[in-house]
Amino acid sequence: MADSLTLAFLDKLWRMPFSGESLEKAKYGILDYIASAFAGRADAGVMKLIRAADEEGGRPLAPVLFHGCRVNRGQSALINGFMGHALDYDDVHAEVRGHPSTVILPALIALGDRGGDGRRFLEAYIVGVEAMARIALALSNEHYERGFHNTATAGALAAAIAGAHYLDWPAERAALALGLAATQAGGLRVHFGTETKPLHAGLAAAAGIRSLLLAEADVQGSRASLDGRLGYFAVFGQGEERARAELLREDAVPRIVSPGLWHKLYPFCSAAYFGWHAAEQLGRIPLDRIEAIEIAFTGRSDAALIHQRPLNGEEGRFSIEYIAALILSGQGIRAGDFQRVPIDGEIRAYMDRMRRTNVMDEPPGVRYTRITVTLTDGGTVTAVGDRPKGSPGNPVTEAELERKFEEVVTGPNAAAIREQVLRLDEARDVRPFIGLLGEG
Amino acid sequence: MADSLTLAFLDKLWRMPFSGESLEKAKYGILDYIASAFAGRADAGVMKLIRAADEEGGRPLAPVLFHGCRVNRGQSALINGFMGHALDYDDVHAEVRGHPSTVILPALIALGDRGGDGRRFLEAYIVGVEAMARIALALSNEHYERGFHNTATAGALAAAIAGAHYLDWPAERAALALGLAATQAGGLRVHFGTETKPLHAGLAAAAGIRSLLLAEADVQGSRASLDGRLGYFAVFGQGEERARAELLREDAVPRIVSPGLWHKLYPFCSAAYFGWHAAEQLGRIPLDRIEAIEIAFTGRSDAALIHQRPLNGEEGRFSIEYIAALILSGQGIRAGDFQRVPIDGEIRAYMDRMRRTNVMDEPPGVRYTRITVTLTDGGTVTAVGDRPKGSPGNPVTEAELERKFEEVVTGPNAAAIREQVLRLDEARDVRPFIGLLGEG
Repeated sequence: MADSLTLAFLDKLWRMPFSGESLEKAKYGILDYIASAFAGRADAGVMKLIRAADEEGGRPLAPVLFHGCRVNRGQSALINGFMGHALDYDDVHAEVRGHPSTVILPALIALGDRGGDGRRFLEAYIVGVEAMARIALALSNEHYERGFHNTATAGALAAAIAGAHYLDWPAERAALALGLAATQAGGLRVHFGTETKPLHAGLAAAAGIRSLLLAEADVQGSRASLDGRLGYFAVFGQGEERARAELLREDAVPRIVSPGLWHKLYPFCSAAYFGWHAAEQLGRIPLDRIEAIEIAFTGRSDAALIHQRPLNGEEGRFSIEYIAALILSGQGIRAGDFQRVPIDGEIRAYMDRMRRTNVMDEPPGVRYTRITVTLTDGGTVTAVGDRPKGSPGNPVTEAELERKFEEVVTGPNAAAIREQVLRLDEARDVRPFIGLLGEG
Repeated sequence: MADSLTLAFLDKLWRMPFSGESLEKAKYGILDYIASAFAGRADAGVMKLIRAADEEGGRPLAPVLFHGCRVNRGQSALINGFMGHALDYDDVHAEVRGHPSTVILPALIALGDRGGDGRRFLEAYIVGVEAMARIALALSNEHYERGFHNTATAGALAAAIAGAHYLDWPAERAALALGLAATQAGGLRVHFGTETKPLHAGLAAAAGIRSLLLAEADVQGSRASLDGRLGYFAVFGQGEERARAELLREDAVPRIVSPGLWHKLYPFCSAAYFGWHAAEQLGRIPLDRIEAIEIAFTGRSDAALIHQRPLNGEEGRFSIEYIAALILSGQGIRAGDFQRVPIDGEIRAYMDRMRRTNVMDEPPGVRYTRITVTLTDGGTVTAVGDRPKGSPGNPVTEAELERKFEEVVTGPNAAAIREQVLRLDEARDVRPFIGLLGEG
């Protein structure tokens, strides 16, 4: 086994050092996941999954966050994974090309009844993000472009690895769970724009849990599932050699620190973030001064924004028109704007003056959204959004994340949850904390 | 949706006619699955999965076959799928390049509490085999050769399709479940030779059940998951066009009839079947007349036969030496020989005289195993096995399948089960039949 890539990768992860900075990043990652999940807690899809879990039944060992009920571990991972990603409000990671926290943290929460201290929980999360970023890099962009959804395909493996680390398994045993996760990896981007996109996060977390439980039951499988001609990277990626370089690369800084998690201040699709930045620069323009509004996207970067005339705030998550109208009207953006609430007449009037264009002659890698407002007096005003909050060089600060948390998370436990997250490295046992998250 | 490949495929399946011949083949397929599962009912892996299911808990809606206990539907599909394939005793299908019945039937059994008549059960099974064969052909051999295990990757979709047909869903709704299955499709051949190989059958059946339950819970996803540039066949196969030809091909005869299911008379790896055929031609040769035995395989066709000196009957499933020794000694083969029972001294003495060689200069497609016995008197006898029982042109007959069933399935219900299978098309309600299968 000495030259097994699988075991060498796990050995490397198992020997990771944990700096104070990485532990801080992990705390804010947890804080942001909790805020995102809280905002999605009553999403229609969450309620469907809770009903389905109730039909299945099972030992109530793990929480449905913020619902005051417990379900079996797999269902907990499924529902909390969906919940965190339901509004597309959760973090992303450029190397993952997907959403790490809403896969890894639900898997760890589903194991919370096993005990363990807060430091162990943070470390397992850091290891999970590290694993998911390296696996996704090793798969290469071609994997995503072929049609796989990294959140799911890399996520199942990362969830199993994080869980095995949390359970303090030796790398040899983690390799068994990893193999069981690799053989369950799947997830197709053809489902983007439907509830199955956030479902992928939950399915990946649940596959990770299933793999750990099967390994605990002593079901035997390959412990070298990433290796060789038939291994995971040969089948899903560009082969073992390319994978080896990414999986075993020596880095001084963990991936949760650099490039780090990108956080969102608002629960709308990241494809609208550039246009949001442009609108913010324009500020309020009264409707009666506006003749027409052109929104120009580089390339097809508006592809994910499937609603040009959304019917409610939920559809508005995938509409630059809705977001621009909220800002140009002076209403501004609040988290509640993206629930299934009707859109008022003034916002609709702004949207009715908008049309999209695409700028196809920019070089690859150049990305912006430009908003041009033609005024009734014949003049025009224009702004280019190319560095929205959350993009590289314009990160969301810890203070802004705390404000997001405060704005989003309501109820009697909000302050206690925030305080416990920010002191999680001091917790002797995570169970009270996870119990608090589960309360309705 | 009219030109959706996904919906066109389901429409075609939903309009399948059911000949008397196909219904008869389905009955014998069920009979053989039951015999294979009965033989594997106490396999170590089955016992592990039952303990894990007990840990998870859940509404006891569906049986663990022959164990007198009920578990949740997903666990029932998982365990019964594993059980049917545990000994590699179950049917295979050349177009599937894998094991259809041990995926499709456990999914249907897991839905058995919903009622439905026997004819519907048989038809859903026929549709499932048809779907799995067409999907696997559409994926092409390259899919298997890349490292995917068709039993799992095509199986999850076939299980969802068969289940939706059994539940009498319209094709539009079946398309939703199919999409949820497609996005869970996975399974790597890197696990061959471990318990995770039969686990794949169970995981595929369970993914099919999960897809149906999520669709019932109204979780939304793509209903055109097989279509286009990001669809299942673009991602896992050779693209939509190649898939379209296979999925929609006009055939007069269903795939369960032609090429039909291949059945095994003995629970050992099909890679040993050619050598078994050679040994059968040699018959008994007393040990004291034998100097040496050479077993020659075309190419690397012995790759799956991982035990040259097996320690017990279970390892003997993957040993041509064990099988040849049973025949040359005159003991003959019985199903019980492949349990975890010690191997007696005479058989070991035969095996000790054997060695393998590989014939590397035959053209592709030529496959045989040749056994050459050098006698103590200086002479040699030789035989070539190229048409073992079960291979094309030498099928297992219905009478032989009934004999397999009688030899394997013991206990007070055996005769009643056999009778009910062979009259399943007359059953008004499958629940009593499935209840009988579940009894310990």
